[in-house]
Amino acid sequence: MFELSPKLKQQLSFLKELEKLKAIQRKTIVKPDNNRQENSAEHSWHIAVQAMTLHEYAEEPVEISRVINMLLLHDIVEIDAGDTFAFASHSELSGQETKELEAAQRLFGLLPASQGEVFMALWLEFEQAQTPDARFARAMDCLLPVIQNMDCEGGTWAKYQISRSQVLKRNKHLEKIAPKLWAYLLQQIDISVQHGWLQGI
Amino acid sequence: MFELSPKLKQQLSFLKELEKLKAIQRKTIVKPDNNRQENSAEHSWHIAVQAMTLHEYAEEPVEISRVINMLLLHDIVEIDAGDTFAFASHSELSGQETKELEAAQRLFGLLPASQGEVFMALWLEFEQAQTPDARFARAMDCLLPVIQNMDCEGGTWAKYQISRSQVLKRNKHLEKIAPKLWAYLLQQIDISVQHGWLQGI
Repeated sequence: MFELSPKLKQQLSFLKELEKLKAIQRKTIVKPDNNRQENSAEHSWHIAVQAMTLHEYAEEPVEISRVINMLLLHDIVEIDAGDTFAFASHSELSGQETKELEAAQRLFGLLPASQGEVFMALWLEFEQAQTPDARFARAMDCLLPVIQNMDCEGGTWAKYQISRSQVLKRNKHLEKIAPKLWAYLLQQIDISVQHGWLQGI
Repeated sequence: MFELSPKLKQQLSFLKELEKLKAIQRKTIVKPDNNRQENSAEHSWHIAVQAMTLHEYAEEPVEISRVINMLLLHDIVEIDAGDTFAFASHSELSGQETKELEAAQRLFGLLPASQGEVFMALWLEFEQAQTPDARFARAMDCLLPVIQNMDCEGGTWAKYQISRSQVLKRNKHLEKIAPKLWAYLLQQIDISVQHGWLQGI
């Protein structure tokens, strides 16, 4: 009988494992689907298309295909480490960094070594946010929930009584990364405070 | 008050509309999430990562970033046109092509014209399957459900009494596009027939 190469076996086992990301729930609500919670797989798709659509607003030039690759991979660690809320407290985040690094090592470790290293390097680049590509990718990850919350009467902001200053802090890098998207964010924050979706402090 | 540019308004309206793809259900089962049906947004993410992982098997060279872009966009039309089962009958597919073209025109038409044209061209290239990039992208779209069904005791094959010949027909292009993945497919079909997950005809 035909034998799969060890390499292809490893790649198929990685792809099978990814199925679990579809069971990782985020706080964000999917309004058109009966207000259920969003999962991290569909979120990853949405931010990748968002980056494709909005990359012209990056102040520093970005290589959009690298940005998209980072966005497609960045949440895979949640399979082991779980999702953390954008506005989680310091104590809730304790140990999360180590958990995610271990998750990345296990999950990218399912792949053939040379490919696992490439994926791991992209994941680390995203986490460290030291390159224009990674910074723009992270900005996309933070911006999408703004668009979603604005379409759900404040969504998670209203539900968890988030304040204007928390949203500003979370997105503050956007000012330099993409000034036009920063201006959009400021406008949405004002509207949200007016509607009582965000606390005004 | 700050005014968003008409261009950015159009882009944000497109991104908001995409939320609806998360409510489009496919037949495939997500086993790790209580066997619920998969939606087309998370499917699009999974096949994009699959293409990133497996593109070395493409017999003709492909530009992987274009393949990924096509895969991220290819299902958006389902927002208006709905998902069709891989093994739908001719009568079930009647009019589907027109519906999908109209959907593409409406959805990519939400974008600024020049960007909408670029996205539309990628979508058409995928649909027409005349380039190596589009052919490989389509092969990825067909292959993932094989991996998923094999992990769910035949999944949709068993549930809808699909036959070996139907799966071969649906994936026949894989033989030339990626011979090593074709060999994997043939092996999985044999195993599935042995288990009674696929009809042997």
